[in-house]
Amino acid sequence: MTAFSFEVLATDGAARLGKIQTAHGEIDTPVFMPVGTVGTVKGMMPENVAATGAQIILGNTYHLMLRPGADRVQRLGGLHTMMNWPGPILTDSGGFQVMSLTKLRKMTEEGVTFRSHIDGSRHTLTPENSTDIQYKLDATITMAFDECTPYPVEKKVAAESMRLSMRWARRSREAFVPRDGYGQFGIVQGSVFPELREESITKLRELDFEGYAVGGLAVGEGQEMMFRVLDSTMPKMPTAKPRYLMGVGKPSDIVGAVVRGIDMFDCVMPTRSGRTAQAFTRRGTVNLRNARHLDDTRPLDESCSCPACRNYSRAYLHHLIRAEEMLGPMLLTWHNIQHYQDLMRDLRAAIKAGTLTQFVQAFEAQQALGDIDPL
Amino acid sequence: MTAFSFEVLATDGAARLGKIQTAHGEIDTPVFMPVGTVGTVKGMMPENVAATGAQIILGNTYHLMLRPGADRVQRLGGLHTMMNWPGPILTDSGGFQVMSLTKLRKMTEEGVTFRSHIDGSRHTLTPENSTDIQYKLDATITMAFDECTPYPVEKKVAAESMRLSMRWARRSREAFVPRDGYGQFGIVQGSVFPELREESITKLRELDFEGYAVGGLAVGEGQEMMFRVLDSTMPKMPTAKPRYLMGVGKPSDIVGAVVRGIDMFDCVMPTRSGRTAQAFTRRGTVNLRNARHLDDTRPLDESCSCPACRNYSRAYLHHLIRAEEMLGPMLLTWHNIQHYQDLMRDLRAAIKAGTLTQFVQAFEAQQALGDIDPL
Ligand SMILES: [Zn+2]
Ligand SMILES: [Zn+2]
Repeated sequence: MTAFSFEVLATDGAARLGKIQTAHGEIDTPVFMPVGTVGTVKGMMPENVAATGAQIILGNTYHLMLRPGADRVQRLGGLHTMMNWPGPILTDSGGFQVMSLTKLRKMTEEGVTFRSHIDGSRHTLTPENSTDIQYKLDATITMAFDECTPYPVEKKVAAESMRLSMRWARRSREAFVPRDGYGQFGIVQGSVFPELREESITKLRELDFEGYAVGGLAVGEGQEMMFRVLDSTMPKMPTAKPRYLMGVGKPSDIVGAVVRGIDMFDCVMPTRSGRTAQAFTRRGTVNLRNARHLDDTRPLDESCSCPACRNYSRAYLHHLIRAEEMLGPMLLTWHNIQHYQDLMRDLRAAIKAGTLTQFVQAFEAQQALGDIDPL
Repeated sequence: MTAFSFEVLATDGAARLGKIQTAHGEIDTPVFMPVGTVGTVKGMMPENVAATGAQIILGNTYHLMLRPGADRVQRLGGLHTMMNWPGPILTDSGGFQVMSLTKLRKMTEEGVTFRSHIDGSRHTLTPENSTDIQYKLDATITMAFDECTPYPVEKKVAAESMRLSMRWARRSREAFVPRDGYGQFGIVQGSVFPELREESITKLRELDFEGYAVGGLAVGEGQEMMFRVLDSTMPKMPTAKPRYLMGVGKPSDIVGAVVRGIDMFDCVMPTRSGRTAQAFTRRGTVNLRNARHLDDTRPLDESCSCPACRNYSRAYLHHLIRAEEMLGPMLLTWHNIQHYQDLMRDLRAAIKAGTLTQFVQAFEAQQALGDIDPL
């Protein structure tokens, strides 16, 4: 059996090129994990997700526990078998979605009680059962159960929230059933306060997780503040373990966070944008709904190898969107996931070559150009 | 250049195994043409449509003339280029959809004036401009402009309608610009009245189309009546040209019509059903929305080679449908198109082997079994 392990293969400044070994395969870092909320990366066949270069996807505990249910997923052979994704899967702990999607929830030291956004049924999430649910889902990487501290927040509230999350992290760690090639990540909280982040890291280190996530960012603080938090937090983070920035983000967020030493990312942005006609390209975002594309025979992004760019014109993509045809979101989702994977591939190559600074400059210059001129 | 041609390679009773040569490739008949209404077979990448064995698809003149517009499709290189379907495409003439989708329409000897169902804009379809639009779309097979006679209908009205369609067929034929490997089909009308059908065939023969369609069926008359009309009509049809039954149908409709000598079919049923959780299987239709599939780890149809059946359980397909995930319609559409193509492949093999009677018996027996028992 494969042990869960992480190796740093090269560095360029604070940025790291690495490799994670898991029971379900290798992961080259820095890595972007497409989000497969309820057991499907929306609008894509899993083999096509893999073909973009994605090596690991994310599943959501909150959604899956409600439908189809953790016990059912287990009976169906776990998430890998159920959704035909043999590669690694990371599941979140459910905490974030309980906060963002449910009403009438009640938080205690024990955990959170809430009502399903689907049918109003009553459920509880605790560090213990969140960890157990992720076991049943067969998550390659289990996340500790935490409270995502809201933003903005007073320091006193942020401290209390962080300390609750750290007590929950200990209980999550105790509930985790070790299996070869599987791991569990702790989540650093503390909002925008460096000393709280440091206290959080110190407490998590004692629990010796297989990886560490930075939580509580990308919640409205803006890119500048997020980078400032990373600048103070990253130097305190364990270096021998993968470091995961949860829920991030735009391509420029990812580039800036990789420069600061982050190894793993997830975000709904490429998939969600694909369903709302927004495409990420080397020259910034493009709205395919815009009438300027009506007769544009050029590809969306001539440097992209995805089917949307290789086989179709902007005019056709625009037509699909205007006609509300399913193929529109399908192609734009594929493109966006390909774009994110290409970005990660290029970042890894730049770290390996020691040319990350030049890469970032070229990236920013190209993004600043904006879309190609209309025909 | 390839001439448009049709060859009968084998017969079994009235059924024919044939091959159509076109500018865009060969078509093995009997053939089922998936419907790509507005320039996309809903929910499928065209390369996957081709992978099911589909050799020709259908496009809709009415939809495409309104959006993105025939001139625009022509500027974008024609329908093949625009939608990345290099193979043959048949376009209908628009008449049927004008009747079924628009209000405030006005029919004269000249043609039909109507308002768009999208934006209420005013348009006219005549034999001449329908033929011209299909030229601009770059249709491999152009259909003559006709009136689809409603059902039920009095014989006198059916006769007038058919004769109008025959005058329109002559005007369509005159408007058709011959190109190597392209063809135009005339449409036999006459409702359920054998002598009207015969009169229609006689008039169409004079125009020497590259193929002949049977129109005005599958409009509510039922399978028994449809087969009765075919029984009287098919012996009068030209034998050296492909024969196309428009808008048909269920698998059993297709089997019965092949037995009666039909070579070509199109129907929205496999794609539309795929979007409403209905799957066609060797043992009849299956509704994947039904709770009986909640924990069913078996494939939808164990004899099917499509991804939905090869890689997923009924339980997962059910989950996708309940969660309203795009992948549900995507997989069920793929399955249904695969099922139809497999049926056509098996029909062709049976005609070639001279075993069509046995095939039909086995087909009917298996369909009558109904779905596999619940677990
Ligand atoms: Zn692309
Ligand atoms: Zn199938």
